[in-house]
Amino acid sequence: YIQKLELELEAIEKGGFEHFMLKEIYEQDKTIRDCMRGRLNALEGQLVLGGIHNYQQNIINAERIIIIACGTSWHSGLVAEYMFEEFARIPVEVEYASEFRYRNPVIKEGDVVIAISQSGETADTLAAMEMAKERGAIVLGICNVVGSSIARVSHEGVYTHAGPEIGVASTKAFTAQLIVLAMIALKLGRRRGTITEGRFRELLIELDQIPEKVKKSLDLDEQTKEISAVFKDAKNFLYLGRGYNFPVALEGALKLKEISYIHAEGYPAAEMKHGPIALIDEDMPVVFIATRDSSYDKVVSNIQEVKARKGKVIAIVSEGDSLIPGIADYVIEVPHTFEGFMPLVSVIPLQLLSYHIAVMRGCNVDQPRNLAKSVTVE
Amino acid sequence: YIQKLELELEAIEKGGFEHFMLKEIYEQDKTIRDCMRGRLNALEGQLVLGGIHNYQQNIINAERIIIIACGTSWHSGLVAEYMFEEFARIPVEVEYASEFRYRNPVIKEGDVVIAISQSGETADTLAAMEMAKERGAIVLGICNVVGSSIARVSHEGVYTHAGPEIGVASTKAFTAQLIVLAMIALKLGRRRGTITEGRFRELLIELDQIPEKVKKSLDLDEQTKEISAVFKDAKNFLYLGRGYNFPVALEGALKLKEISYIHAEGYPAAEMKHGPIALIDEDMPVVFIATRDSSYDKVVSNIQEVKARKGKVIAIVSEGDSLIPGIADYVIEVPHTFEGFMPLVSVIPLQLLSYHIAVMRGCNVDQPRNLAKSVTVE
Repeated sequence: YIQKLELELEAIEKGGFEHFMLKEIYEQDKTIRDCMRGRLNALEGQLVLGGIHNYQQNIINAERIIIIACGTSWHSGLVAEYMFEEFARIPVEVEYASEFRYRNPVIKEGDVVIAISQSGETADTLAAMEMAKERGAIVLGICNVVGSSIARVSHEGVYTHAGPEIGVASTKAFTAQLIVLAMIALKLGRRRGTITEGRFRELLIELDQIPEKVKKSLDLDEQTKEISAVFKDAKNFLYLGRGYNFPVALEGALKLKEISYIHAEGYPAAEMKHGPIALIDEDMPVVFIATRDSSYDKVVSNIQEVKARKGKVIAIVSEGDSLIPGIADYVIEVPHTFEGFMPLVSVIPLQLLSYHIAVMRGCNVDQPRNLAKSVTVE
Repeated sequence: YIQKLELELEAIEKGGFEHFMLKEIYEQDKTIRDCMRGRLNALEGQLVLGGIHNYQQNIINAERIIIIACGTSWHSGLVAEYMFEEFARIPVEVEYASEFRYRNPVIKEGDVVIAISQSGETADTLAAMEMAKERGAIVLGICNVVGSSIARVSHEGVYTHAGPEIGVASTKAFTAQLIVLAMIALKLGRRRGTITEGRFRELLIELDQIPEKVKKSLDLDEQTKEISAVFKDAKNFLYLGRGYNFPVALEGALKLKEISYIHAEGYPAAEMKHGPIALIDEDMPVVFIATRDSSYDKVVSNIQEVKARKGKVIAIVSEGDSLIPGIADYVIEVPHTFEGFMPLVSVIPLQLLSYHIAVMRGCNVDQPRNLAKSVTVE
């Protein structure tokens, strides 16, 4: 009886979805909105981050920001590197927490360290933060679980407010992290004077429209499912992107690895010619994140190179793209936004793709083999 | 007749080896010695780098070093990051040249940029250097081909003197790059006073013994060949390492990808638990670079985790290791050295492994499909 009740409870918690992961993917328009609520007011051009207050001036003056994280959070960090450098012109280094903590890194008094973790309990990240703090760094935490260890160890921090994430493969926590990092980058840029008031307001309006665009991307579910059926038996996948979409490629590949056990690997598209292109033949599906941005032309030629070697190309493109549909085998059109925010939109079909492929392969999506939700051991 | 002569010429050039790649792997004790000749005098405790002279003071005072490269050279850069931070305590960032050049990176007057490229003609690296130079950076080039474009664009630089590399998969150029980078890091550390004279001399003696240790590693050829026969039909491989051996894991995986077309991926071992461990089952060979260093204990527990999931483990260990042979399926013992120089030794069996697997699969080792020796297009 107890078991039956638990099963029913779980069904209720899943809110009609077959898996927590799918429910969480579908929640993202809402969780992104929740994350911005009370912080971003696009109409008034205001951005308030209460969690970063006492140390705001130190961060504004930082000569260097170091981001430490693991797994999916590390991918958020890579996107943040590009955002911080673009908006705030502060050099950023992104480190695997496990590598950072064991190699006596150079940390100077006043360096700012940002730690990212959904659970707030990731052992390596926590240990790296503590080391950085001891050496005089200002340590900010970005995590989802209120009152977690990382939240407590940080000098200050910002919660992602995505709500409990049950699926082991992180989805809504990732997009919420990106929103928080975008808000911090914009705030810093504005305060440092490295973006104009006009640009700042434009970008706030863009951010404010992200939930709508994520919602529209979720409508791609059926199409993504059809493509999943074609590739569900693939043994390998490559994911390629450039610029802001390079970390998205890594994240798309990680999702597929985690829940479908297909060996998928992400790469910056230009590196393909330095090795991975040797892997390409008619059995190798290649996912390109090829939205309309400053590296669009280069990505198009990378797609052509893969097609010339008979690879199968699935391309995530901006709505209205008229060129890539003529080259790629499958095209998924997502709403367009400023390129720095594109990862928030372009990652959605990749989450769905990994989900459907895993379900079709009969994998346990919410509890993939060998994986734990939070890695609290080293 | 012309063709016959050419074939004979090629045979002579291969010096009795079946492929250029194997010849180049076997040349490494000599090429490393050539690279140090006239520069390192261990007995006298002297290290002279004529190529870095006019800008030496600027480099010593640098607040930040940015390393740009692609492919195998990018892996050298990752090793260099650890060496520079350890010896000279200067923060280092390693960037894919293709990503760096397209994203308006933060470069300050006086920042030092080090570009690494075997051919000296890599298009993305060259363009990234030119951009950095325009923005006031001091640009150093590390390349193998004398008089190449990168050598000409650099303010100063150091040649690797490894001799012509014909095999498309880079081997001897990689180890020569590591030697050059180690010499620069040691020189900087000594001049900045971040390593003592005693330690400096010790490390010079260690460096001086590398050719001998590389030679001993080459004796592992037969053993590596036997292991290759076991795994030649594998569809996937993982390569894992920590610290200085993390870039070696990436390099080992890249070699296998390039010439055998097996999908091999490198990862920092601690990241395994954040996703890739889901891939592990009895069909997944995992190569650990697990030499005796500061992260040895952690790597041992990573090996145990893989074994608990029935993965097949091939471990590269330090001579005399008594623990790992009891856990791993196959063990390759390499001579031990200071952990920062270990990549020079631990990469040798990985080069041989990829070579033998590729030959056994009937692949064209010297001219792998889809790849060019130098990537002179973007």
